[in-house]
Amino acid sequence: MITVLFSAREDIWPNYETRLPEALAEEGLAARVVREADPAEVDWIVYAPNGGLTDFSPFTKLKGVQSLWAGVEQIVGNPTLKVPLARMVDPGMTEGMVEWVTGHVLRHHLGMDADIKRTDGQWVRHVAPLARERTVAMLGLGALGTACARALAGLNFDVRGWSRSEKRIDGITCAHGDEGLAEVLREAEIAVLLLPDTPATTNLLDAVRLALMPNGAVIINPGRGPLIDDDALLEALDEGRIGHATLDVFREEPLPAGHPFWHHPRVTVTPHIASETRPVTAVRSAAANIARAERGEGLLHTVDFGLGY
Amino acid sequence: MITVLFSAREDIWPNYETRLPEALAEEGLAARVVREADPAEVDWIVYAPNGGLTDFSPFTKLKGVQSLWAGVEQIVGNPTLKVPLARMVDPGMTEGMVEWVTGHVLRHHLGMDADIKRTDGQWVRHVAPLARERTVAMLGLGALGTACARALAGLNFDVRGWSRSEKRIDGITCAHGDEGLAEVLREAEIAVLLLPDTPATTNLLDAVRLALMPNGAVIINPGRGPLIDDDALLEALDEGRIGHATLDVFREEPLPAGHPFWHHPRVTVTPHIASETRPVTAVRSAAANIARAERGEGLLHTVDFGLGY
Repeated sequence: MITVLFSAREDIWPNYETRLPEALAEEGLAARVVREADPAEVDWIVYAPNGGLTDFSPFTKLKGVQSLWAGVEQIVGNPTLKVPLARMVDPGMTEGMVEWVTGHVLRHHLGMDADIKRTDGQWVRHVAPLARERTVAMLGLGALGTACARALAGLNFDVRGWSRSEKRIDGITCAHGDEGLAEVLREAEIAVLLLPDTPATTNLLDAVRLALMPNGAVIINPGRGPLIDDDALLEALDEGRIGHATLDVFREEPLPAGHPFWHHPRVTVTPHIASETRPVTAVRSAAANIARAERGEGLLHTVDFGLGY
Repeated sequence: MITVLFSAREDIWPNYETRLPEALAEEGLAARVVREADPAEVDWIVYAPNGGLTDFSPFTKLKGVQSLWAGVEQIVGNPTLKVPLARMVDPGMTEGMVEWVTGHVLRHHLGMDADIKRTDGQWVRHVAPLARERTVAMLGLGALGTACARALAGLNFDVRGWSRSEKRIDGITCAHGDEGLAEVLREAEIAVLLLPDTPATTNLLDAVRLALMPNGAVIINPGRGPLIDDDALLEALDEGRIGHATLDVFREEPLPAGHPFWHHPRVTVTPHIASETRPVTAVRSAAANIARAERGEGLLHTVDFGLGY
């Protein structure tokens, strides 16, 4: 019998209370899932930072931590964490992200806002080019970025993928490294950011890189707030060099009431809703991963503490 | 040498002047494409109603008319037309329609307008269900409806197709006839209309059928204006039974300035931009069709004058 501690915001517990034990049982694991336990008895922690647990040192027999979130920037630097940490790769979260990204790329591609916001009753036709005539950059080619890149390519967009280290994806033109990023940005009419928040990605889109993009380009950020230099973005938006930014994530969340993003005519704020962990699929993913490790097959999606993701 | 008369709005001629003769030549046809000719010498007419040609009787050796438009309601009842009439099935138009329909379905699925229109600076989270939990009805399963249904199913939407006569599409649950329409509408959280404008489809969505739909359902009409009973729709919108209507086509276009659709908070007017014929691909489609007929293989996409499409 293994002991799994569920440590996350209390109000999501009802979504996991029955499902997580069931999923572990389906994986053939004899496990008890608890919200409180003697730390010395805990084998695994299913974890989100908003549960308040920050000191892992009392968990003396802990084998690993399965994050409920895809982003691990709030835990990866924790010096008390000495065991493997697995990111959440949840099919439900991936599907939701594909839907949000595809929807907002199509929104900007089609120029929908002009019609959605129109109040002047003027019949002004604006037929969009075809998606195959539109270049979209996907910055970040992890599980989420790759799924979004494939969905956009399936809709005929000319997708250019970028990642820090070299990756290959069938049907997607991929680039990597600093020079690759510059090449991709020079062509990108729409750029989607799905990178982890690490020291290496902080202010990735800074004034210099924003200036590489075609005039009127659109930024869509469902990744993490610090990927963008906010002041540089605001300046580029003020000047119209960046045509629009649709931002789902911010350095401070909720985005403070007085922040200039809220009322900028070229900014759409969405309140960190691009995607979230879906309990029905996430419990299966977490249970399967813990079962792998218990069988000695090794945890999947483990974080490289050096790289930070 | 055959003679092809191009009869459409004069300002689109530059898009066809070189491309159409080239496409015909690529099909191996010796053809001249003209804007004016002795009617007795014309073999084929490439046609749009806005060119002003309404009397086909002087064209004594005419073999057929290739429409530039997918919708043929303005020509199908013309008593002077005694030769086969082919609808335009243009891959470029189909792609554009798939993009517009997919984009607006995702927009409503995700509830984007709340964020796009937000001016109060309030962080109000609203995570959408997954597409697989959302039922979308596609009314009309011609070339455009089928392509849109497949694209939406590819994004995991639970798509229900409907057509007047029975059709089967791999991966799409299809229904037909009056009882099938009632069944589909009862489940449809979002309904997309891509039917031809015929006497049988006039006011297809009337007060009775609108009342079948789930409370708050969304109507998306990129088909033809007369498919909907406008007064019944406005009443359902006023009462909130229909949550939103995104309308691209109208009984009168441009939509008159004083029309209640322009300022209704639950209506988005798009100015007949969902899709249009794309010259690059349309000339190939038209040339291939004329070449088929010239080789004795029969014209494709011919209109049934009894059904009106």
